[in-house]
Amino acid sequence: MDLWYTENHTDDAKFSIKIKEQIYHDKSPFQDIDFFTSDEFGIFFTLDGLMMVTEKDEFIYHDMISHVPMAVNPNIKNVLVIGGGDGGTVRELSRYKNIENIDMVEIDEMVVRACIKYLPLTSSKLDDPRVNLFYEDGVAFIEKKKNEYDLIIIDSTDPIGPGEGLFTKSFYENCYLALKDEGILINQHESPYYDRDKKNMNRAHKRIKETFEIAEVYQFHMPTYPSGHWLFGFASKKFHPVNDLNETAWNLNELETKYYNLELHKGAFYLPTYVKQALDE
Amino acid sequence: MDLWYTENHTDDAKFSIKIKEQIYHDKSPFQDIDFFTSDEFGIFFTLDGLMMVTEKDEFIYHDMISHVPMAVNPNIKNVLVIGGGDGGTVRELSRYKNIENIDMVEIDEMVVRACIKYLPLTSSKLDDPRVNLFYEDGVAFIEKKKNEYDLIIIDSTDPIGPGEGLFTKSFYENCYLALKDEGILINQHESPYYDRDKKNMNRAHKRIKETFEIAEVYQFHMPTYPSGHWLFGFASKKFHPVNDLNETAWNLNELETKYYNLELHKGAFYLPTYVKQALDE
Repeated sequence: MDLWYTENHTDDAKFSIKIKEQIYHDKSPFQDIDFFTSDEFGIFFTLDGLMMVTEKDEFIYHDMISHVPMAVNPNIKNVLVIGGGDGGTVRELSRYKNIENIDMVEIDEMVVRACIKYLPLTSSKLDDPRVNLFYEDGVAFIEKKKNEYDLIIIDSTDPIGPGEGLFTKSFYENCYLALKDEGILINQHESPYYDRDKKNMNRAHKRIKETFEIAEVYQFHMPTYPSGHWLFGFASKKFHPVNDLNETAWNLNELETKYYNLELHKGAFYLPTYVKQALDE
Repeated sequence: MDLWYTENHTDDAKFSIKIKEQIYHDKSPFQDIDFFTSDEFGIFFTLDGLMMVTEKDEFIYHDMISHVPMAVNPNIKNVLVIGGGDGGTVRELSRYKNIENIDMVEIDEMVVRACIKYLPLTSSKLDDPRVNLFYEDGVAFIEKKKNEYDLIIIDSTDPIGPGEGLFTKSFYENCYLALKDEGILINQHESPYYDRDKKNMNRAHKRIKETFEIAEVYQFHMPTYPSGHWLFGFASKKFHPVNDLNETAWNLNELETKYYNLELHKGAFYLPTYVKQALDE
């Protein structure tokens, strides 16, 4: 028997992975959660049928979401992660000795529980003593926070279902208020290639640009996401992600990274012309 | 009725495109040739079932294969394109007024004929008076050429079937001899992500590195190729692709490009750590 997981990247394009076994299925109050094993990608999981994390390429996503801001401001001590239930973002952040506190706000406790059980590769550092887990809505959580964080990472799903509120103007404004003057916001910024992803990219960029003094976008190769071309946003009140890159300070961390490096950091912000044009639309 | 084209990226991962119609099928002495129409990608064609060119993203591939060398050496006048039957590489090269001659050597005349008929977007400049078409084996063609070209572009399929000879050590050595002292070699360099593509990438890099004084690799986002993460090689006897980038000269061409730009040129050579490590294996 052949068993295939298929994700429709658009109505007319789909990507399929041969699976060995479905090892978990449940329905949380927020979404369907499914875990699979596969030869090509190892263990992977989906939310409402959409690919979230595979063992084969999660290092790309988690390197790029965490090391880019950390290499710009070496004094980041207090971090808020919104979403990121798989724990991969926290795992990378926990490698920085300078970081004193990580609040992680994930709306869906069942995702975290399942990742702790089935995906230790990403969830292994959720028990770091610096990590505080809140199973709450990030939209409500952020409203109470003022001038508190050095870094906020929005490690969200697409803006449908539980991720929707994490793409609104008022949410970005509340992130701005929750950040200190030297604060940095990193957000899952969708993709420029397929129409629906591009619309989400545009909307997020427009709103963040209206809110923050500096709003740049960077790219990476994420093979299991639609088109393989994915983006994060870098916004801040004063730091420029390339001009203020602090190579000396980052090297002092002596971190081995499989995707990220300091040259790539710069290169990731040098976007194709059509992406730059699309962001300005 | 739903009609889907499917390409197996590996035994365990496949990508499918909903097609409107198969508009051409034939079997040349070298390979199966198929053309399709689709809503998502426009017209596209495959050789032996493998994706070659789609109207939606061919600009990415053809920008990166042609503008990178042209921005390093503005004095390129005599060019050899091996493969490239769709004409997209010639189309981009034909935009440079400085180029005086383009020899294009494509083994499969039927591919060129079909592209002229069904894919005018890429084949439209094959009738440029500077273009000489040779329907020959590039491997044999290059053996007769010594110290002749400023630029050789290997716009080949994968190293199976008719493309195989274009990945051999003796072929790269003959390219070296066919290039002038200031010559540049660009080659289709496969991908770092899936095992088979990675093996091809490694083998090509090892052989080119043994042959040329300078051998670098650069990346781009190619959504319809396996993993979306694709590479070209840049090899030369004296030019470094980033250190010798001639921005002033390239800007004088006043070319509008949809993917390529001078910042991206540099960024494309800043590779992820795992790719750099894989190239050194």
